[in-house]
Amino acid sequence: MNLVLNPFVAAIPANPLRALFPYAARQGMLNLASGHPSRDAYDHEGLTEALAKAGADFAAWTYGPSGGDPELLAALSEQVAEVPAGHRLLVTSGAQQGIDLAIRTLAPPGAAVLVPEPVYPAVLSACAAVGVRAVGYRVAASDAAMSGLADALAATPDACGVYVLPTFGNPTGETLSQTQRLALLALCAARGLPIIEDDPYRALWFRAPPPPSLMTLAPQVPGAVVIHLGSLSKIISPGLRLGWAIAPNAVAAPMQEARQASDLQPNSLAQRVALHYLRLGRLDAHVARVRALYAARHDALVERLGAAGFVMPPVEGGMFVFARMPEGVAREGLFERAVARGVMYAPGDAFALLSGDAAFADRMRLCFVGLADVDVPLAADRLVAAARG
Amino acid sequence: MNLVLNPFVAAIPANPLRALFPYAARQGMLNLASGHPSRDAYDHEGLTEALAKAGADFAAWTYGPSGGDPELLAALSEQVAEVPAGHRLLVTSGAQQGIDLAIRTLAPPGAAVLVPEPVYPAVLSACAAVGVRAVGYRVAASDAAMSGLADALAATPDACGVYVLPTFGNPTGETLSQTQRLALLALCAARGLPIIEDDPYRALWFRAPPPPSLMTLAPQVPGAVVIHLGSLSKIISPGLRLGWAIAPNAVAAPMQEARQASDLQPNSLAQRVALHYLRLGRLDAHVARVRALYAARHDALVERLGAAGFVMPPVEGGMFVFARMPEGVAREGLFERAVARGVMYAPGDAFALLSGDAAFADRMRLCFVGLADVDVPLAADRLVAAARG
Repeated sequence: MNLVLNPFVAAIPANPLRALFPYAARQGMLNLASGHPSRDAYDHEGLTEALAKAGADFAAWTYGPSGGDPELLAALSEQVAEVPAGHRLLVTSGAQQGIDLAIRTLAPPGAAVLVPEPVYPAVLSACAAVGVRAVGYRVAASDAAMSGLADALAATPDACGVYVLPTFGNPTGETLSQTQRLALLALCAARGLPIIEDDPYRALWFRAPPPPSLMTLAPQVPGAVVIHLGSLSKIISPGLRLGWAIAPNAVAAPMQEARQASDLQPNSLAQRVALHYLRLGRLDAHVARVRALYAARHDALVERLGAAGFVMPPVEGGMFVFARMPEGVAREGLFERAVARGVMYAPGDAFALLSGDAAFADRMRLCFVGLADVDVPLAADRLVAAARG
Repeated sequence: MNLVLNPFVAAIPANPLRALFPYAARQGMLNLASGHPSRDAYDHEGLTEALAKAGADFAAWTYGPSGGDPELLAALSEQVAEVPAGHRLLVTSGAQQGIDLAIRTLAPPGAAVLVPEPVYPAVLSACAAVGVRAVGYRVAASDAAMSGLADALAATPDACGVYVLPTFGNPTGETLSQTQRLALLALCAARGLPIIEDDPYRALWFRAPPPPSLMTLAPQVPGAVVIHLGSLSKIISPGLRLGWAIAPNAVAAPMQEARQASDLQPNSLAQRVALHYLRLGRLDAHVARVRALYAARHDALVERLGAAGFVMPPVEGGMFVFARMPEGVAREGLFERAVARGVMYAPGDAFALLSGDAAFADRMRLCFVGLADVDVPLAADRLVAAARG
């Protein structure tokens, strides 16, 4: 067989995070690599009740509208997704489908989308699959004017949009200040460029809620356009594969057409489970419990690793820290040594724009939410031991 | 706001079938338009049992592999999807995602994919969304050599693949003979072109199983390459949004990467429900019951409409007939007259390659499976009355 394939699809880079899946299945492995909620961060009682209600509901078993189940859309906009005037809410298959649809709707093949460095690698896959160039910009906590973005914009005349994960970022865990948010909105508005705001971790703050979303702030900046993406994966269940997109009507309509062309509509069963779960009125209490759980795990991990010389830029919520290893750690073979000791992490390289770029070789993304409380210090100790050789 | 969008996505044609959804919701409407199983064609008892088992199963609530849940892949290949050597099975979000992934994997923007006329319009949407040209070919039951396809192939040097729904077609309901299948395989093999075989209706035969699939016949034709797409929508539940793709390894790998870039993975909850349903061992008996139900409805509809002068090319299974109206029917305003009488159908125009093309203006796609038995003659009578003015 000598097939010629679409070169864009043939060139999608392998997602380095999904490549770690097989290690995670090893007996006794403590997984700091994957951004997966732990078993005790699910509301099993509520989900079981919602599931039974959904099963008795014919809408769970048949076709439904491409934009989402109307009752779920109403429940989402009441409880988790504020929809500004002139905007529409769409149910998506996780925030990932929102990223894909937003990129495809904004950027034709060959054009560019700006993405932060380091970046969540599935964003690069979504760009590559449709022949869109991902062009990096840097963000520093000290850079109130977002000058890294300004420079990248100036150097990229064919940019069609700017992707950002401003709140409890992946992989950095960091959050843009309100000043940075307004600067980002102004820079993009000045260029007429829409912003893709990926915001799946917003509810997972530790001690105080994060700054308002870019979508909430946009009305303060004339001309700013935001496509906001959210997810039920981190607050209810990733297995439901449900997220949402909020976009101006003129963007939401083609996004919905692209969605329909891809897979017709959101999953009916999962949507009715989510609807019945939201109607139980348990979400707020559940998320409050998850926040406390994750904050305690974060503190335990950071304290232990900090004492061993790891440096972790402070984070105020979410699921990740992007730790810098102590000076003098032998990086060569470190992942294998960690795996041998029964702990795994996501190597910093996985978040570089170009595979082989060593810009983040001294970093590791550590997800502090996936382990049981008792396993957090144990995982830290194994990591420290691996780092020491 | 003066946004510039990706012209491909902005130009996706509206799916004329999904535009009929609002009519279907009207009180008392008898819907012959939509390809939706009727309520009595679900195994509610089995689904309820499977749902309870899935809910107790942590795999339903968390992330899983991009290619599909390994246990579901095993169950599918045992019960419904035979996987040839050198091929891989992927779980998809309905056959529609399989169509989208296959087109995107085979054809770069600007290239062509051949599609039959009349055609299921969601195929055109999938092409348009990625800038692939859909080029039509004709199929006649009398044309054993598939000369319509041969002509189209000769006229399309940049074709990257051939889409076909060979068994109980949509909208025609018709089935390619084994001779036609072998001719199609030979034509495509001679050009080195992969075939996208969309085969969601195969199990729904009335009196005898259909000819073997193109994928099954392919080994008889050296060089033939088939991507086979199936679905649980017509045999278990469309709300699960689960289908599958079987493709040669060299095609399945990039299809899976494209899938991961789009939405990471199949729905975990739906996959575990499908797995537990398949493990109940109820599928064969359920499908046998559905076959009998649909055959009886088909016969009732065809008899009633035939007596009133409608002409329906014979079909041996599936969900649709593509009826030709009697001579002299006033086509202008017919859909509105039908709706006013409480019956709806899918106008033949909806299946033309180009919107505005009147090639099928004297046709209507009638889905005979969605109504309760007692409603089938009633729907036929309303349609006849509407046709008479």
